[in-house]
Amino acid sequence: MRVLVSGGCGFIGSHLVDRLLRRVDVRELVVVDNLWTGLERNLAHVSDPRLQVVIADVEAFSAAVPFDEIYHLASPATPLSYMAEPVRTISANVAGAIRLLGLLAPGGLICFTSTSEVYGDAEVSPQPEGYRGSVDCTGPRASYDEAKRCTEAVLFEARRAHGVRVKVVRLFNVFGPRTRADDGRAVSNFVSQALRGLPLTIYGDGSQTRSWGYVDDILDALERYFWLDGTDYAGPVNIGNPREVAVIKVAEYVARSFPGATLAFQPPAPQDPTNRRPDLTLCNQIIPGWACTVPYEEGVQRAIEWFRHELLATTADAPGRTAARRSGARPV
Amino acid sequence: MRVLVSGGCGFIGSHLVDRLLRRVDVRELVVVDNLWTGLERNLAHVSDPRLQVVIADVEAFSAAVPFDEIYHLASPATPLSYMAEPVRTISANVAGAIRLLGLLAPGGLICFTSTSEVYGDAEVSPQPEGYRGSVDCTGPRASYDEAKRCTEAVLFEARRAHGVRVKVVRLFNVFGPRTRADDGRAVSNFVSQALRGLPLTIYGDGSQTRSWGYVDDILDALERYFWLDGTDYAGPVNIGNPREVAVIKVAEYVARSFPGATLAFQPPAPQDPTNRRPDLTLCNQIIPGWACTVPYEEGVQRAIEWFRHELLATTADAPGRTAARRSGARPV
Repeated sequence: MRVLVSGGCGFIGSHLVDRLLRRVDVRELVVVDNLWTGLERNLAHVSDPRLQVVIADVEAFSAAVPFDEIYHLASPATPLSYMAEPVRTISANVAGAIRLLGLLAPGGLICFTSTSEVYGDAEVSPQPEGYRGSVDCTGPRASYDEAKRCTEAVLFEARRAHGVRVKVVRLFNVFGPRTRADDGRAVSNFVSQALRGLPLTIYGDGSQTRSWGYVDDILDALERYFWLDGTDYAGPVNIGNPREVAVIKVAEYVARSFPGATLAFQPPAPQDPTNRRPDLTLCNQIIPGWACTVPYEEGVQRAIEWFRHELLATTADAPGRTAARRSGARPV
Repeated sequence: MRVLVSGGCGFIGSHLVDRLLRRVDVRELVVVDNLWTGLERNLAHVSDPRLQVVIADVEAFSAAVPFDEIYHLASPATPLSYMAEPVRTISANVAGAIRLLGLLAPGGLICFTSTSEVYGDAEVSPQPEGYRGSVDCTGPRASYDEAKRCTEAVLFEARRAHGVRVKVVRLFNVFGPRTRADDGRAVSNFVSQALRGLPLTIYGDGSQTRSWGYVDDILDALERYFWLDGTDYAGPVNIGNPREVAVIKVAEYVARSFPGATLAFQPPAPQDPTNRRPDLTLCNQIIPGWACTVPYEEGVQRAIEWFRHELLATTADAPGRTAARRSGARPV
């Protein structure tokens, strides 16, 4: 098996690479990542000779030999990144998917990590896959939401019209090691602020809820759906933690681990969804018995430990690491 | 002014070219069209030396000098075309728009013809621009609906993040001369079938409604909004005829002009919207006084005359015309 992972240096992408390298049938694993939000050090622990990392934009990537399996994860995932470079976000997802279809071997499989953001500011809760969503395609989050929706369209239409094998998941909020401290996600924000002795920033009143899935749990689901369980179901399949927690609860929980930590309130993010919770009925049929097992309290403790270690490591040898990362990165 | 029209050999594109050539401030007008659904003969009447037609895919088009105004109309517009080549449809719209942004001169204007299909199978009628739509992004119409939604996202986000000047319209059903006889649109279908002595095909029971805007009326609106009235409003702006008519009524009306014509019923098209009617509140503010003035009965009569003439012309010299068109077209 010749396998490609776009965005393989990213948060979820690098965890997926770890899981793929456990497979003995994977002969070659190519990661393509432009290091826009991914970090080479997310794969620094891998010494497997089957892995090759190519620093490039996925929509410009080419290969002489096609791939049997392609995992398309190349995309920023937080408003801080996609709102700053929205056109690039759409290009990575949509033009990226179109490019990757051209690199797929006949009969090959292409998998895509879509998002609960395709539901927009949902009017139903929990959100089943059949819910068509409430997305403002002219709004400030549209580059991400519509990029993901349109990439789903690319893949499901390639399947309908041309028989391409696809698998699509819609991931709800994921957190854990290898998120960036500066990525603006609630958990990483709170933890990295607390570790630096800064107030924990809450956008809006914090009553907006999210379903926090710990990354190891989510990867268990991806592994089962994408290759272990042998299903042919094309999706989309919701994957996430159905336990809904308000953002302020998470902040308060993090603050409890840091005596003296305070909360700071900022204006709400534009068009921030008020709620987010997966309907897992379909997921339970496709990968029966799977569920998130790490409660957010434990996940947050693990994230604190990981970020603490990261903060020490990057403070200790920051210049060297920065230079190493820059050397391979394309100019931005 | 250096102006670019993508899809300028198409139905609406070629009418827009006619209008643009009336402007004395247009120094150069470049049309880029790959003749997928456009026809070179739609511009055969133009002998203006300012016009240059380039046969190319818009997403691969390049130019040495940027453009002051760009009109992005490159897209198939009927299910027959976009369902057959969905990925190409998405590429033309989304990758096309991204490409064109790179060809825009500083301070230049990019205009986009979006569609009422962004509303999907609308749960509200009439549809105001603020309605977020009901689109199945995994469904058989997704290549068109999501391509248009995502292209809107490209442009509005380019505006928000980078200050690009944009104008976006959402066109409701348009009909009239220069539609293709084989394009599957209701009016052109009915008229060309009637002219050939075939039964008029209705998909479903014909109770689905559309708002039929005659092309000259729609072009009056585009001309005013895009350049005549001097507005800076970015849109999206609904443009169409608020008079909603059931598909079967149009078929019956066409049939009345052809003694002996019959209707034939086929299964409904997948996810065919049940209704479609523009809320023109915003349009009335942006281009006050504009309204569709050609009733569909008169428009249909004009279309019958045009198609009758076309049928005679293409029957008379079909081989020559076909060869001429093929010579410039890219291999498909």
